[in-house]
Amino acid sequence: MDNKKPKVGIVMGSDSDLPVVQKCIDMLKDFGVEVETIVCSAHRTPEKASDFAKNSEGNGFDVIIAAAGKAAHLPGVLAAYTPLPVIGLPIKSSTMDGLDSLLSIVQMPGGVPVATVAINGAVNAALLAVQIMSVRYAELRIAIKKYKEDMKKSVVKKNEALQEKLKQ
Amino acid sequence: MDNKKPKVGIVMGSDSDLPVVQKCIDMLKDFGVEVETIVCSAHRTPEKASDFAKNSEGNGFDVIIAAAGKAAHLPGVLAAYTPLPVIGLPIKSSTMDGLDSLLSIVQMPGGVPVATVAINGAVNAALLAVQIMSVRYAELRIAIKKYKEDMKKSVVKKNEALQEKLKQ
Amino acid sequence: MDNKKPKVGIVMGSDSDLPVVQKCIDMLKDFGVEVETIVCSAHRTPEKASDFAKNSEGNGFDVIIAAAGKAAHLPGVLAAYTPLPVIGLPIKSSTMDGLDSLLSIVQMPGGVPVATVAINGAVNAALLAVQIMSVRYAELRIAIKKYKEDMKKSVVKKNEALQEKLKQ
Amino acid sequence: MDNKKPKVGIVMGSDSDLPVVQKCIDMLKDFGVEVETIVCSAHRTPEKASDFAKNSEGNGFDVIIAAAGKAAHLPGVLAAYTPLPVIGLPIKSSTMDGLDSLLSIVQMPGGVPVATVAINGAVNAALLAVQIMSVRYAELRIAIKKYKEDMKKSVVKKNEALQEKLKQ
Amino acid sequence: MDNKKPKVGIVMGSDSDLPVVQKCIDMLKDFGVEVETIVCSAHRTPEKASDFAKNSEGNGFDVIIAAAGKAAHLPGVLAAYTPLPVIGLPIKSSTMDGLDSLLSIVQMPGGVPVATVAINGAVNAALLAVQIMSVRYAELRIAIKKYKEDMKKSVVKKNEALQEKLKQ
Amino acid sequence: MDNKKPKVGIVMGSDSDLPVVQKCIDMLKDFGVEVETIVCSAHRTPEKASDFAKNSEGNGFDVIIAAAGKAAHLPGVLAAYTPLPVIGLPIKSSTMDGLDSLLSIVQMPGGVPVATVAINGAVNAALLAVQIMSVRYAELRIAIKKYKEDMKKSVVKKNEALQEKLKQ
Amino acid sequence: MDNKKPKVGIVMGSDSDLPVVQKCIDMLKDFGVEVETIVCSAHRTPEKASDFAKNSEGNGFDVIIAAAGKAAHLPGVLAAYTPLPVIGLPIKSSTMDGLDSLLSIVQMPGGVPVATVAINGAVNAALLAVQIMSVRYAELRIAIKKYKEDMKKSVVKKNEALQEKLKQ
Amino acid sequence: MDNKKPKVGIVMGSDSDLPVVQKCIDMLKDFGVEVETIVCSAHRTPEKASDFAKNSEGNGFDVIIAAAGKAAHLPGVLAAYTPLPVIGLPIKSSTMDGLDSLLSIVQMPGGVPVATVAINGAVNAALLAVQIMSVRYAELRIAIKKYKEDMKKSVVKKNEALQEKLKQ
Repeated sequence: MDNKKPKVGIVMGSDSDLPVVQKCIDMLKDFGVEVETIVCSAHRTPEKASDFAKNSEGNGFDVIIAAAGKAAHLPGVLAAYTPLPVIGLPIKSSTMDGLDSLLSIVQMPGGVPVATVAINGAVNAALLAVQIMSVRYAELRIAIKKYKEDMKKSVVKKNEALQEKLKQ
Repeated sequence: MDNKKPKVGIVMGSDSDLPVVQKCIDMLKDFGVEVETIVCSAHRTPEKASDFAKNSEGNGFDVIIAAAGKAAHLPGVLAAYTPLPVIGLPIKSSTMDGLDSLLSIVQMPGGVPVATVAINGAVNAALLAVQIMSVRYAELRIAIKKYKEDMKKSVVKKNEALQEKLKQ
Repeated sequence: MDNKKPKVGIVMGSDSDLPVVQKCIDMLKDFGVEVETIVCSAHRTPEKASDFAKNSEGNGFDVIIAAAGKAAHLPGVLAAYTPLPVIGLPIKSSTMDGLDSLLSIVQMPGGVPVATVAINGAVNAALLAVQIMSVRYAELRIAIKKYKEDMKKSVVKKNEALQEKLKQ
Repeated sequence: MDNKKPKVGIVMGSDSDLPVVQKCIDMLKDFGVEVETIVCSAHRTPEKASDFAKNSEGNGFDVIIAAAGKAAHLPGVLAAYTPLPVIGLPIKSSTMDGLDSLLSIVQMPGGVPVATVAINGAVNAALLAVQIMSVRYAELRIAIKKYKEDMKKSVVKKNEALQEKLKQ
Repeated sequence: MDNKKPKVGIVMGSDSDLPVVQKCIDMLKDFGVEVETIVCSAHRTPEKASDFAKNSEGNGFDVIIAAAGKAAHLPGVLAAYTPLPVIGLPIKSSTMDGLDSLLSIVQMPGGVPVATVAINGAVNAALLAVQIMSVRYAELRIAIKKYKEDMKKSVVKKNEALQEKLKQ
Repeated sequence: MDNKKPKVGIVMGSDSDLPVVQKCIDMLKDFGVEVETIVCSAHRTPEKASDFAKNSEGNGFDVIIAAAGKAAHLPGVLAAYTPLPVIGLPIKSSTMDGLDSLLSIVQMPGGVPVATVAINGAVNAALLAVQIMSVRYAELRIAIKKYKEDMKKSVVKKNEALQEKLKQ
Repeated sequence: MDNKKPKVGIVMGSDSDLPVVQKCIDMLKDFGVEVETIVCSAHRTPEKASDFAKNSEGNGFDVIIAAAGKAAHLPGVLAAYTPLPVIGLPIKSSTMDGLDSLLSIVQMPGGVPVATVAINGAVNAALLAVQIMSVRYAELRIAIKKYKEDMKKSVVKKNEALQEKLKQ
Repeated sequence: MDNKKPKVGIVMGSDSDLPVVQKCIDMLKDFGVEVETIVCSAHRTPEKASDFAKNSEGNGFDVIIAAAGKAAHLPGVLAAYTPLPVIGLPIKSSTMDGLDSLLSIVQMPGGVPVATVAINGAVNAALLAVQIMSVRYAELRIAIKKYKEDMKKSVVKKNEALQEKLKQ
């Protein structure tokens, strides 16, 4: 387990999910994580989905992130075929405000968990992947701590800007 | 397509679904339909699920009924691997009153439909299978018509019983 | 049952449903299925609805697709009067995000099933009709298999396009 | 319109609804209203349902009360066939806590209203029928006023009992 | 009860409800019903609301229609003070898609019913008022029957237009 | 404003709410607060409700707590008639799991707020009343701080008990 | 407790909440209440949040208003650290229509209440704060009574405007 | 990072959550993972919660699991204070069927993710922790693979038992 670099596979059920998923890709790259992103549907290309999952460990992935909307089976289907931790990112679709995606992803039966983040929570999917990999990669632990510090500073700055604004 | 007999495959995600599914089995047998019932999970035994679906047409099934609860991916996963019509039977689980199962089954993305019936609607799953097969098997068309007539008579009898009761 | 050609009746509760339903009509025609489409309301023209359903078998329909919004009774009302399989297509209306339509269609009582697809799932209503009719019509079985293959190829192409895009 | 006596038709979709509906029957009889109660399903005995509704005006009914659960189409189906006011009583079924019944009854499309009361609100269905008929029958106006006065007194008494209890 | 003319009071909780309520006013006027419309809030002008309700019978109203959004107490509050039938019209507000209004209006406790129509169902509120008054006013019974006939014809015409359109 | 003692009025819509409300009464008494509890319905005894609210300031109440279920109008109706802060306690009823009560209480329109606590959150209704009154009564500020400290100690003890239990 | 002036702390989880929160600030200032507004996140700047709450009593605040969206923990987190009454203002976010914010704020466990107002109910959050402080500050009691009177007059005027409009 | 052993901290908001959480403890122990379990509330003992989280990395934890019901802030509050991955386990409470817990945990704002599992999904919380730690600990990767294989065998056995049962 020595020289391995952190690597995340992102699978989205439809290329229409890219506008949401892009934030996830960007955030992971900001952390210096190698990312492989594919379009692959649990329903339209089920063999590709299962093949990707079966080979995910061998291909050096540490974590899989799966984004899907509506009856969002993709994260669960990947989780069925891999021992890796799978993060589920529910996509808000044109109806039901994302509740269908959320429940389809989070309510997994005993034995096959999916680590679910908020509806359209692409940034958090990336951060969770980093946190998970930081269990192994010390540099990511340092990076996530720095990220949290920067976030604090950003809120403090926003507060200062607000104080200025409210004075006027 | 000559001497084929109507045949339905019932797949349930967990043997704990049997109390609900049994009514589906019984109803199909009442119609003289050959039934094969298996326990097979989309998440715990994904290859068995996909194998069953891939072979379903070759094995002479006309329709597949899949029962599942919570993040109920089984009907959709089977539908991904078979050209046969798949009926989804949402099972009410210990939380969310079956809404999670319903949405996970019915909200399928374009391209891979699942014919969804009511939460715990095991009898209707069987009847829908019979109606679907009656497109081909004339004897089932006759039988479903008789079933509908008998149902009417049964309601009429219940009404007569009510009238008796209310008189008292 | 020899020379019959596949034929589907599409009933919509209001002509305002046409933008959604049109995709269903087009898809069925792509499969070479004869389609008859009418506007007919369970509440405003109940006799027309029941007459259509009563005569549907005699008029050579194999499957009925009924689209309706809000308190969407149309699919259930048609199912009450016909032995044919009825597909319910819940239409998203101006409030409740289609949940009212979905529950009004899918939660049918025992004895009279409606094969429900996703909210605004017009394409899937058509594909489900084709799958149902493929139980009888061998050419539709071949066509649905081809459709699934084409769908796979389309996802593969979308993935290739994504890979190109992400390289840039 | 002279010597007519107030008369209400109560239709329930299933005899299993009787425990809830009985309170409605009793309340109407307390008001001296003639009541006719039948079991009749919009889906299992659709012609009986439409016949009842078509003949309801001629048979001297002033108001129809329809009780139904799940995909509760009965009130809307009756309303389609009669000019009389129809009261819908949503019955709580084994899943979805009555939300399915409520939405299936209350969300009627423009043109065919159903006067909906609370889930399992059998007493209120009866009282609403009395209030509606009190538009015509002066004796019912007097009776509903008395009922409201008695209700006040009953609450006052319950409050007095509470005060006693809290003193101890 | 001789020379009385049908008269409806419409109360809306906020003048921002007028765009929805206007359809209710117009429909009632189409039926020749006298309408009095006021803005009056259960929470901001509670005495005016209770006074209106207390005097409603004496002022010759047959039915009250109350439109309100969010925690929509107005219909229930009016119903508390009057023996007249009260129709509740839930208004869709900026959040919760009208579900809050619907539940706040329809889930009335035993003793004080509100006849609830669909969210934003202004036309149906008017039609229900007409149907209720038709229990007494024979001319409204005739008018509502004509309305239903016209509605049928309108649907038939829309169907004919669809057939034309689909031929092209 | 000198010698006044803290005093809370608790109003419940039905005496069936007492099992829940009792915890609220007990908690307030534990804080030494004078409590007056009445049964009074916004719908069945509306004048009593408005009278209680109108006189609440004059009668020396500091805060009103109103408990109600279903279409829970009581807190809002009281708030309409009093300048005092009104706490709304949504009661879980036999259907809808308290969501109807919650939305009917919390979604108040602009101008007339109700301070809403959790469904069946009787203890918190009492504590919130104490916190509100602690703005004026220094002894209640001290008491609430002590309560929070005791609560901490109780959790610490429960944790110690757990540690013991887990060791075994 | 003599010369103290009423003072409210407003905390928002994100500066994107300002458009909603501004109405709350303005309303409090209209009542002459001193307001301090900060951006401070329960998750991004947790120490700042707990420090603000711990020091809130010492810093002379009477009431805290906390606005937050999605998994809206801010009001509860502040309430954990302060004996002051905390008002929770659920912000409608991009998904779930504010239901997530509402439940995350209102469903507090026993011991730590949050006084919750309607989703995006910024004006009511301010008014509730004024009502709470009016328990101590007599001038605010007078002011809130005047506000309620003005509100009545405003509704009366709106009604008059409506009458004019409807006459035309 | 050499000789470290996998270690998980489990925090529950109330000792009443133990019956659900116990399955999580047991499962982790089955995997040979060191577990430390505490009762600690985000609202009742906020400093203990933040201290636990702040020290969690230093104390050698790899993952934190937090179980909480209702307005379930605990997982998010811990996540605010630690760089470790936090798993949220929503507990079904007495109302709202766990939907409040789920939304309060999963809908975290950008920057602070919580890896959410199903309502009452205690076993999956444990398995997800194992999967996360398997990114680092090779023995856990082996163990989770074995677990998945055993699970398959168990389903196969249940299917065999079913076949026996159905033969009879």
